[in-house]
Amino acid sequence: MRAARLHEYTEDMANGLTVEEVDRPEVSAGDDVVVEVEGAGWCQTDNHIIEGMWTDYVDQDLPLTLGHENAGTVVEVGEDVRTVEPGDQVICHPVQTCGVCRPCREGETMYCENQSFNGLTVDGGFAEYLQTGERSVVPLPDGVDPADIAPHADAGITAYHAAKRAVADLNPGDTAVVVGVGGLGHIGLQCLDAMSAADIVAVDLKESARDLAEDLGAHLTVDPEREDVPAVVDDFTDGSGAEQVLDFVGADETTALAPDIVTAGGDHQIVGYGGHIHEPSQALVNGEFAYQGNIVGQYTELQELVALVERDEVDLHTSRYDLGEINTVAEKLEHGEIDGRAVITP
Amino acid sequence: MRAARLHEYTEDMANGLTVEEVDRPEVSAGDDVVVEVEGAGWCQTDNHIIEGMWTDYVDQDLPLTLGHENAGTVVEVGEDVRTVEPGDQVICHPVQTCGVCRPCREGETMYCENQSFNGLTVDGGFAEYLQTGERSVVPLPDGVDPADIAPHADAGITAYHAAKRAVADLNPGDTAVVVGVGGLGHIGLQCLDAMSAADIVAVDLKESARDLAEDLGAHLTVDPEREDVPAVVDDFTDGSGAEQVLDFVGADETTALAPDIVTAGGDHQIVGYGGHIHEPSQALVNGEFAYQGNIVGQYTELQELVALVERDEVDLHTSRYDLGEINTVAEKLEHGEIDGRAVITP
Amino acid sequence: MRAARLHEYTEDMANGLTVEEVDRPEVSAGDDVVVEVEGAGWCQTDNHIIEGMWTDYVDQDLPLTLGHENAGTVVEVGEDVRTVEPGDQVICHPVQTCGVCRPCREGETMYCENQSFNGLTVDGGFAEYLQTGERSVVPLPDGVDPADIAPHADAGITAYHAAKRAVADLNPGDTAVVVGVGGLGHIGLQCLDAMSAADIVAVDLKESARDLAEDLGAHLTVDPEREDVPAVVDDFTDGSGAEQVLDFVGADETTALAPDIVTAGGDHQIVGYGGHIHEPSQALVNGEFAYQGNIVGQYTELQELVALVERDEVDLHTSRYDLGEINTVAEKLEHGEIDGRAVITP
Amino acid sequence: MRAARLHEYTEDMANGLTVEEVDRPEVSAGDDVVVEVEGAGWCQTDNHIIEGMWTDYVDQDLPLTLGHENAGTVVEVGEDVRTVEPGDQVICHPVQTCGVCRPCREGETMYCENQSFNGLTVDGGFAEYLQTGERSVVPLPDGVDPADIAPHADAGITAYHAAKRAVADLNPGDTAVVVGVGGLGHIGLQCLDAMSAADIVAVDLKESARDLAEDLGAHLTVDPEREDVPAVVDDFTDGSGAEQVLDFVGADETTALAPDIVTAGGDHQIVGYGGHIHEPSQALVNGEFAYQGNIVGQYTELQELVALVERDEVDLHTSRYDLGEINTVAEKLEHGEIDGRAVITP
Repeated sequence: MRAARLHEYTEDMANGLTVEEVDRPEVSAGDDVVVEVEGAGWCQTDNHIIEGMWTDYVDQDLPLTLGHENAGTVVEVGEDVRTVEPGDQVICHPVQTCGVCRPCREGETMYCENQSFNGLTVDGGFAEYLQTGERSVVPLPDGVDPADIAPHADAGITAYHAAKRAVADLNPGDTAVVVGVGGLGHIGLQCLDAMSAADIVAVDLKESARDLAEDLGAHLTVDPEREDVPAVVDDFTDGSGAEQVLDFVGADETTALAPDIVTAGGDHQIVGYGGHIHEPSQALVNGEFAYQGNIVGQYTELQELVALVERDEVDLHTSRYDLGEINTVAEKLEHGEIDGRAVITP
Repeated sequence: MRAARLHEYTEDMANGLTVEEVDRPEVSAGDDVVVEVEGAGWCQTDNHIIEGMWTDYVDQDLPLTLGHENAGTVVEVGEDVRTVEPGDQVICHPVQTCGVCRPCREGETMYCENQSFNGLTVDGGFAEYLQTGERSVVPLPDGVDPADIAPHADAGITAYHAAKRAVADLNPGDTAVVVGVGGLGHIGLQCLDAMSAADIVAVDLKESARDLAEDLGAHLTVDPEREDVPAVVDDFTDGSGAEQVLDFVGADETTALAPDIVTAGGDHQIVGYGGHIHEPSQALVNGEFAYQGNIVGQYTELQELVALVERDEVDLHTSRYDLGEINTVAEKLEHGEIDGRAVITP
Repeated sequence: MRAARLHEYTEDMANGLTVEEVDRPEVSAGDDVVVEVEGAGWCQTDNHIIEGMWTDYVDQDLPLTLGHENAGTVVEVGEDVRTVEPGDQVICHPVQTCGVCRPCREGETMYCENQSFNGLTVDGGFAEYLQTGERSVVPLPDGVDPADIAPHADAGITAYHAAKRAVADLNPGDTAVVVGVGGLGHIGLQCLDAMSAADIVAVDLKESARDLAEDLGAHLTVDPEREDVPAVVDDFTDGSGAEQVLDFVGADETTALAPDIVTAGGDHQIVGYGGHIHEPSQALVNGEFAYQGNIVGQYTELQELVALVERDEVDLHTSRYDLGEINTVAEKLEHGEIDGRAVITP
Repeated sequence: MRAARLHEYTEDMANGLTVEEVDRPEVSAGDDVVVEVEGAGWCQTDNHIIEGMWTDYVDQDLPLTLGHENAGTVVEVGEDVRTVEPGDQVICHPVQTCGVCRPCREGETMYCENQSFNGLTVDGGFAEYLQTGERSVVPLPDGVDPADIAPHADAGITAYHAAKRAVADLNPGDTAVVVGVGGLGHIGLQCLDAMSAADIVAVDLKESARDLAEDLGAHLTVDPEREDVPAVVDDFTDGSGAEQVLDFVGADETTALAPDIVTAGGDHQIVGYGGHIHEPSQALVNGEFAYQGNIVGQYTELQELVALVERDEVDLHTSRYDLGEINTVAEKLEHGEIDGRAVITP
């Protein structure tokens, strides 16, 4: 089968991956599931992987087929698999778990002590077929096209996960600030809107992103190049600040907003990881806020997100590309030229 | 009456405060309470105030009587006061609140929008008498000497507050790391021990502090100059890391421990504020941990801490000094020469 | 001024209250607030009070002016009042609190140890003027007519309070069952819809109530006289049951639904109190569900409800009556002839 | 192998089970585990099963080997088992789970949609060998005798589970009431003591149970035949009531205590199921308390309980009996003649 693989870390996105012929994966263990990939979302993290930015955090053996946002049709299952069968359409949680370590027992998919991560530590879905396991596939409702929903496998649940955490502390009358209305941010904003009655302020450099935010339910949008974000938030919240900030950028300048825009007792949710936090401990003490990291979401959160999709609460903006165009996509994203989410359709 | 007052910000602790004669405070509003101060704890924050380190965060008018950890006997009350009367022994929450803003309504003492803070924004308790309000005094159980318990008014509830937050996420078999076993740390450690069945690892540069930690219930102590803290924690937790870290230091090198010692989903509680956080956003994302700021505690938490004291669960190590020795105390603390907590007895 | 007062407990609703002339209340304490009543909702609880059903639970001195759902305009304030002034429009939380007991400190308005309850333990708002305190009034947004919003003072926050509790455990894909779509139920249903993405099943005997439920966002309505409620819920939830039930009736036959319709780990929220619970302990153990009592809500929850109103998320169905028609209202409610909520406009 | 089996429901405990020869279980699926039983606790529920009291709640095929509190040594494992091997000592969670339904994904062992329950729906451990699965066994720390710890498999985690729920709402200064200090109650009491700083009041008819409660950390014991429980609790809590009640009896007269002893906002935890709840809905509304059902605990809670055992925080009072004495044990328990917990040692 054809697969887009990384052979060497590089800053040159135009030549990052190589499309080549590899063996089709087959079922080898009792709970294996092989999926014919119909949609595989391209993620900022794919660019980061090509640059080698994850080598400090995980073990990677090159060459590696990238692609961690996959959906498609089950074509083969192991003998112990009970919940899906060939022909079922599924979305694939990016992490394959052991099911018996303590984090798995607690439902903490992302903390599995024996995990593999599609397209990051094992071969992913920029290929015709993907090998995964029963513990990682969520059946799709009737009428949902896998290629339309694929980015929910990572962009979606990551945004949902952070939004769900925020919602737990958002009452009517409270304010949530969404920083960055891109691939993840535009999903997170809709999740906030569907699951809370908080007011939403959206911050983005791009006018098209701010327009999208408004369409999707933002009560106010801010252009950080022309407006002073802390002043706007202060004004919007009558001086009290935002209860929750969802930072889908995570750059030095966005994390630096926290002491000025988060209310006492609130949280600055770190989702994007474009830069650093540099703050005196005293700022966190004085404002009693938290910088809370967020990585992907649990399997059950993917089920919940699929339920939101079924209720038409989350609209995903996608554009489709062939497997052969994969490096073009990487370049375009690098230059901020992708609107919504690019989906590869192998 | 005599009071120790700050006239000018200075790095020179030997001449930080001036003991002088000022008017005794009197009841002016219906819910006022005047307390004869019998104990007033000296806190690292007092040194920070003298240095001017809080001017960026709060409004201060000099001269100002410092002292925010006060306990003593009620001598006068306003006409609306119902819960205490002259002769009652009380400990004074350092913050005086309005009672009608939304944070007050939620019990969030520290977030009161109209607060004054003893010894920080209004005159404090390094004086013979202190003016406060009914909403800020907690009656003491019989037989408790105010001078013994005074530091609980700030050091105590701050440590309790952070420990209570940690305990909410600590199960039997989990591990809490206490960084810094000084004035606050030795209280926090006892609170963890009283309210959870987690294992406690205590980290401190001083041998006497480590010995104290062991006496108070630590299951392991670490000398960070001779041992590699991440390696020790990794070993103690079979590779999973600590569920909660209580950082009573908050220096660059202690906040930098988080990515290596906090387990996925855990928290690094920032209590001390000796330095900065400098971390890539990616570290928080990958490890899905939080840096959580902590400032003092709620009025109700001071009640809970007094209940712990009544049960003999929290032992406070104090040494007493006259009001006239106040600058000596400041200097000694600066040089790490105070064991436990210094209490001024005006 | 004129006031509608209860002189004797009776089952005869046609002659329950007497409209008579009484002294107008005046400010006597520093935090007193006197409100000119513009709307006072009539509640099922008023019928219960007239019948003497609350004498086992609270102390009542007759004669008593009833009316606990009040809104209007401030006409006089005590000298310590800072947050409202004459001319301000407000809605009145039914409970007047002390502000210094531990429940007050925790924000638990309803648990105040020194409370009085308008129209239940002290004179209420079926009168031209009402005496209350600063701790009990919530300012209204511009353009809101007090007579339109008065029932939110009790019906509203009670429904909101129960809904908020339910929402904390409702994920997308989950199901909430609303039993009884009357004065409280139709508000609770809207709160669920605004604050969660759960599916809502509404149960009511009256066709008009079921139609209203559908208009307000219910995904399914059930007529319990013609359909088997457990079978319908079982079918709707694919056999798993509802995560939350909001029982605005609380009759023997509605509480008896719990073992058959609540999923393991879910809650049956008791809001109405028309009857009893009669269940074997084993049913609660086997299904691991809870019967959770709900009484009114906190002051801060009334703020949150007013924020929902300002966002147009909660539509209140009311009909207006003069003070002189008050016993007619009582009778009509007894016979189920009031649609939505009756508001007295003194 | 020998096994004690139920052939017919009966009230005659002296002839409830028949010890007979049956086939030894063998590994048939990849994640099967066969355990040689060294200890199997006898539980009040075993008496209830013999009486046929569970037939309304679960499917049972007779004959059935009872016994759901098992511990012993692994003798055989399926080919996919990774976390235990023959020779390992384990305690067996009574429920065998599928691992892929939504409750399993959430860590809710007890809500598994495809579960079997040892000794209740499939053959249990009153036998020389037990067949279970990898998802249900918790390895024991070195030096723990399986026969000493077996009752923790059900009595233990059930008590732990209810105590953990209570602890989440218990602050220092709060009060927990333990009703019934028998097989479960004496464990629950120790868990409360280890994990909270609340005061504990223990209620039991038997003097020996009250003495045990005192030894294990109760601050007050009450004999309900000679003292008025509500009056004692009222006095002990200065009129506010208990924040949490753990009712290990669940009889009509113990559930009836709730309105009089639970503080507003508190919970009456139903663990035992000896009778019914009969209360007006108004009682739950007025006191805003909950009756919360509790059934066994999660797999991870069994891990946590084992951690408590390893810390010597939970002492289990047991007496040992041969498999042949099994009906004698049933009879003795029926007559309240077992102190602590009876353990069968097949």
